Parts: sequence; structure tokens; C-alpha cells
Amino acid sequence: MGDAETDAGSGAPGAFSRRRLLSTAGAAGAAGLVVGGAAGAGGALAARDAPVALTTVGSSRVPFEGRHQAGIVEPAQARGHLVAFDLAPGADRRTAAALLRRWSDAARAMTGTGSPTTPAAYDDQVADDAGPSSLTVTFGFGRTFFSRTGLTAHLPEALAPLPDFPADHLDTRRSNGDLWVQIGADDALVAFHALRVIQKAAGSAAAVRWQMNGFNRTPGATARPMTGRNLMGQIDGTNNPKPSEPDFARKVFVPSAGTPQWMAGGSYAVVRRIRMLLDSWDRLSVARQEKVIGRRKSDGAPLSGGTETTPVDLGKIGPDGALAIAGDAHVRVAAAASNGGAAMLRRAFSYHDGIGTDGAPDAGLLFVAWQADPLRGFVPVQRKLDGADGLSRFLRHEASALFAVPGGCGPGEYVGQRLLEG
Amino acid sequence: MGDAETDAGSGAPGAFSRRRLLSTAGAAGAAGLVVGGAAGAGGALAARDAPVALTTVGSSRVPFEGRHQAGIVEPAQARGHLVAFDLAPGADRRTAAALLRRWSDAARAMTGTGSPTTPAAYDDQVADDAGPSSLTVTFGFGRTFFSRTGLTAHLPEALAPLPDFPADHLDTRRSNGDLWVQIGADDALVAFHALRVIQKAAGSAAAVRWQMNGFNRTPGATARPMTGRNLMGQIDGTNNPKPSEPDFARKVFVPSAGTPQWMAGGSYAVVRRIRMLLDSWDRLSVARQEKVIGRRKSDGAPLSGGTETTPVDLGKIGPDGALAIAGDAHVRVAAAASNGGAAMLRRAFSYHDGIGTDGAPDAGLLFVAWQADPLRGFVPVQRKLDGADGLSRFLRHEASALFAVPGGCGPGEYVGQRLLEG
Repeated sequence: MGDAETDAGSGAPGAFSRRRLLSTAGAAGAAGLVVGGAAGAGGALAARDAPVALTTVGSSRVPFEGRHQAGIVEPAQARGHLVAFDLAPGADRRTAAALLRRWSDAARAMTGTGSPTTPAAYDDQVADDAGPSSLTVTFGFGRTFFSRTGLTAHLPEALAPLPDFPADHLDTRRSNGDLWVQIGADDALVAFHALRVIQKAAGSAAAVRWQMNGFNRTPGATARPMTGRNLMGQIDGTNNPKPSEPDFARKVFVPSAGTPQWMAGGSYAVVRRIRMLLDSWDRLSVARQEKVIGRRKSDGAPLSGGTETTPVDLGKIGPDGALAIAGDAHVRVAAAASNGGAAMLRRAFSYHDGIGTDGAPDAGLLFVAWQADPLRGFVPVQRKLDGADGLSRFLRHEASALFAVPGGCGPGEYVGQRLLEG
Repeated sequence: MGDAETDAGSGAPGAFSRRRLLSTAGAAGAAGLVVGGAAGAGGALAARDAPVALTTVGSSRVPFEGRHQAGIVEPAQARGHLVAFDLAPGADRRTAAALLRRWSDAARAMTGTGSPTTPAAYDDQVADDAGPSSLTVTFGFGRTFFSRTGLTAHLPEALAPLPDFPADHLDTRRSNGDLWVQIGADDALVAFHALRVIQKAAGSAAAVRWQMNGFNRTPGATARPMTGRNLMGQIDGTNNPKPSEPDFARKVFVPSAGTPQWMAGGSYAVVRRIRMLLDSWDRLSVARQEKVIGRRKSDGAPLSGGTETTPVDLGKIGPDGALAIAGDAHVRVAAAASNGGAAMLRRAFSYHDGIGTDGAPDAGLLFVAWQADPLRGFVPVQRKLDGADGLSRFLRHEASALFAVPGGCGPGEYVGQRLLEG
């Protein structure tokens, strides 16, 4: 094809004959690949027709079975779906047990060895050819689940309704729910496929109450580890508890001797759809944004000095005689509230649903916080942040839910079996 | 942390102490990586705290400058945004020229060497730390652009309004537009960042008319090359023209001697938001779906025999005495219409905007077709498909637009300069 393409529209101001060929080093020094970098469309031929390799992005697998459910401690994937279901009228404990059995079997099959496999009755083949792509499927129970199924005797105290936070703007249609499923995968079609399978496997037992789509960085797009950036451009998650810390499990998981016994190895998930008022935020200077957060935007270092991982020095006075970390800075309010260590693991997805009815981006954070006890995790932190945090002027909590996420299951078992057959 | 976590909730039906450790080979035989595969949360420690590498997913770069704009012949990226703008009232040719200059400079900077760089005035730092991730930004002009800017003398004939297709259900608020920008990147935050930069760089010259988000497979999630699957689970794009074919450029690009001269090296983009009626589709058996399409779902081979790339044999009679490819099969109607070779390059993104107001998935295809002349590309094909295609019962075209996408620009130039300064 090349001949017709390498002669340029001669004489016109934009005319030239060769696409500039540049080599580049990636942000972390990886060898750069220039796609379509040769002459005109001919150069892109190589890229479009090039062999494609299945990498660890596709071949990585997270086992479904285990003491804890998958999708809590693993890094959040590039694509996520959160979906809540309400049981159908008349559905009872037996209906729910059969549903959780179907869902667990489907999740086990999709996350299984090799290529994802799916119960044929539900499979739309959208995930065919792809690897499991770190797919996880995580199931939880909302407070209303227990009354609908006659299981109120087993309702955990920790599942008490979250308190009202005065700054909330909650849409009840996108809040709560009898059942919750969190799906994550590093490939969008694998995640979509899992969502459809879970919806179909619900059959007539439960109907979708709400559903949200989210995303994170694609593996390999950055050399930065887990503290990614949110849609405000801030590095997010620096103070997250690390699995290597001695009290990680105590913060995140219900202990073996915990109550109720069916929640041993489980966790509680607080889900908040937090819209970011990005047009207002972006009008601030970077210096002003940094004061609101209390950290440098470029690298996440606290304004009291050091690097991202340096502890925040709340007493530090700056050269201007003022507190280096402002009185209403996000890190100050959050740090005070958590009494020296957040007792929750935040594992969020960003969301972007286009333009809102107000003309501004309908975008922000699908915040998912995991903890052994919401009353020692999310609730006290949010009580302090709500209103008092300088950042809260740029956020709007639009939906909220709390779910009890039981421990994982073993071969032949299903998630929630200890509750539903206990 | 380990001690408390390796003892299981003994006695309960779901109790066991170790997450099963499995090794797996990916779909194409790549060495599988099991994430979180050791005991409980302790095993996931390694995954969450593991070093992260910038791979070619992040470091790949598509040069902005060239004879053709980027984002046409390169493989469609994992994440895409389509956004249309209308010029502000009173905006003229000079306003438009300044806008295209700002947009081109921003796109050039974001797709530049090394880490993406961005004019500071627009940068929200959401793309910081990431590589360019194959970012492309492509600009086009709608028919209304020419009357608003006094450039009707330069309006291409090929930009005549698309004919009415009786089966269309078009939402005019999400159709057409003075200007169009297509953004693609293999990382969702890099793509979002580019979208925000383009929106901010529009300033008061133009306002967003509509905006849509799409996706494709993540690089490395599959070993299958460019013919990916759509949300119906079908392999899509088998008959796309290949850059290696001798008439590829003739089909896709306006030749150097073409008219108008400012479109030399350019292409015309037909954009259709095609909702898939997935709940109806998924109720069909796979055998019935295959008859609707005329290809096997698993591997895309025509029902007349062979493999994915075997030419369709429309006259082939099956063992039951009937045509192997049904009379209304998609491949038959599309093949007849295109007279033996589609004169357009389809480069689509899937979309999924959650649950529609009708309770069914608001999901389908952001269809983008590239051609030297829509009257020899999309229009004759769609005339035949509209209504007559068995597949059309499961599709609904909800939005439509046609844009003139000029050739690329060289160093110091901007896209559309030959039109706006011609």
C-alpha cells in the first residue's frame, strides 16, 4: 500500500511525508515502544498485525476459595463492578441458600484454572480467549437480608445502620440492598462477563437494586505501587494498613473467636459513591489543593516534610509561622479521628459516568472500606471528616451501604453457608 | 500477622486453614501467576507489596504528528472517550483556529516523549507517574462546523448528512456536533486525564454536546489479535481491511489528489452508538445466535466451513438441504451490500453505562467506522443491514454522527490548519 501514502499533500501548510520517528524511555526507564512510528499508515501495519502475547495481566489468577473471600487484600483491579440485589418477594432462607450456592459455583468456575469457565446456562462467551485476568467475585449481606430470610437472630451487631452524616446527599435508590457483589478484573470484558453471569445466575431469586462501574490503573501503565492516583490527581491510600503490619488482620477481619461465629474470617464493607466536584477542584491552584489535603500533589509527601511514607508531623510550623499542615487539612482531620492508625483498608475504584445532569463530570470514587468493625473503622473517621475536613467541600457522598462479607469457602462449599445452614 | 490468621474457625462447616494453592497455565500457555495464593491474607502480602513494573502497556507511545492523524490505523485501546463539542455562539473561524491550535498542542504534549506532559493550565496530574499508554487524540469536524465558521465553501461533499435509516432510534442530543474528539489509551486514568485536558482547553470557545465512554480488552489479557469480542460474545472485525492489503489506503484515506484539498490524508468517521439488546440476545441458544450471525461463536469460523479467515461461501448447502448461511444472516447481508469487501475500517469500543431506564443493560458498541468516502463505505452497507439483517432485531442505533477528520499535522502545525488558514 505504501506508495500512495508516502507522498504528502505537497504545498499545503500541513504537508510532510514521514511520521516523526521517536524513541522514548517510559516514566520508569522501561524501554519505550513506539506504535505506528514508521511512514504513514504503513508503519502502523506492524502494530496492528503484530503477534499478541498473553501476559501476566491476563494469566494472573486469584483463587476463589480460602479463609477470606478474594477481592479484599488483593490489589484493586483495573476494572470493577459493584452491584446490589434485593431478594424477590417471598424468597426465603432456602431460596437464598440456593442463590449463594449458584453464585459461588459460578465464581469458582470463572476464577478457575486456565481460561475462565462458566456454567453454560449463563455464559455469553464474552470472556472467551481471555485469561482470568485476576478476576475476583466477593459476596456480602445487607441488613435487610436478615429480616427477609428469617435470620434476624444471626444479624451481626456490626451491621447496625451507619449513622446519618449531615453532609451526605444520599440517593436511597443507589444505597443499601439485601445482597452485594463486588467484581474486579484487569480486563473490562472479563469483568463485564462476570457481572452478566452473576445477574443471570440470580434468576428469579433476586433483582438488581443498583449497579456501578469503576476503574483503576492498568497493570504495567505505571511503576508506582499500590498508592495510585484518584481523579483529583492526588496520590491516595498512603496510610492504608499493609498486610505486612502485625495488626493488619485485627483491623480488617473478624477473628476466629469473633461474633457472630458465621462471620469468622469475614469483614465488613462500607461502600460509598463519592462524587468529586472536579470543576471546582480544578479551579484551585496546586498550592491550594495541597493545603486542602496536607500533602504534596506530585509525590504525596506531607507538607510537614519528608517523602510519601514519612509520618505526618501535625505540630510542624512552616517558615511563615503557620502550621505546615492546615487546621482543616484532610490528613490532619483524618489522622486525629483515627487515633494514630486508620482501622480500615480502603480498596477503591474510580468512576466516571460521563456528564451529570448539572453539566459537570459525574465522576469520583467508588469507595470501599474493609474493616473488622465499622464502629472502629469507617464510622469514627467519617464523623470527624464530615463537614470539618477541607476536602469535604469538594466531595459529595451520593450513595452509601454497609455489608457483612463472610469468610471464604472451601471446596464444595458456598459463601455464607455457615449462616444459611448454621 | 500470620498466627491469628492461619487458625481456621474450627468446627464450622466452611472451616479450613489454607487457601488452596494452584498453579495455572494461561489460555495461551503463558506462565500463570497466582495472586494471593498462599495462606490467608499473608499470601496476598507478596502481591500487594510486590514491586510493580512499567511494561510496554504503559510505555508504548503513538506519535501525534504524521500524514494521518493517530487513532485510526492503530489498534483500538483498552479505554476510549468520544466527545462532541458545539462552538460557542459568536465563535468564528479565528476562534476555531485558536481552539484547534490549543487542542493540537495539548495532544502533542500528552503523547510526547517519556511521561505525558501537559500544559500546566489544564493539568490535573491524574496521569502523573503513568507512561503514555498508547494515548491517541483525534480531531474531526461536523457539518455544522462549516456554517458556523463561514467555511461552507470548504464543506466536503462527503459530509452530506447520513440518510435516514428506518430502523434508527436516534437521540439528537447525543448525535452530531460541530467538533469531535476521539481519545484512546490503554490506561483509564491516562484517557480520563486527556479528556479533562481537552475539555479545559476548549475554554469558552466550545461546550461539550455529548460524551461517551468505551473499552476494549486490556493488552495482555488475551493472545487473540485484533479481532476481539463484542458484548454479544461474537468475534468482531474479521473482515476489516488490513493495512497490509494493497487497497487499504484507498478505502480509508482521502488521497493526495482528493477533494477538498485540505482533507488530503484525512478520513471520514461515522460514529454510531449501537445498543445491544443483551437480555433478548442471551435468551437465544448459541446455535440460534450463530445462525443470526452466520459464524460460529467460539472461533468466528463461517457456518459454511473453515476457520475465522476462510471466505464465507454464501452458496453452500448444509447437510439439512438448507443454506449453511441463512438468508438474513448478518454476514450474508453485510457481504452482499459491500460487494465483496467492506470499504471501511471499523475501530470500535464497547460501552456499558450500567442499567438502562428499561431495566436492561445500557450496553453495546461505540461503533466508529473510518473510510475515504461514507457513500462508498458505511452508507451502502447500513442501507442493506437496516431491517433486513437478522442481527438488527437485537440492536438499536441510538446516536449517529459523521465527521471529517483531516490529515495529521507536522511539527509546529495544528490539525485542521489547511482548512482554517487555507
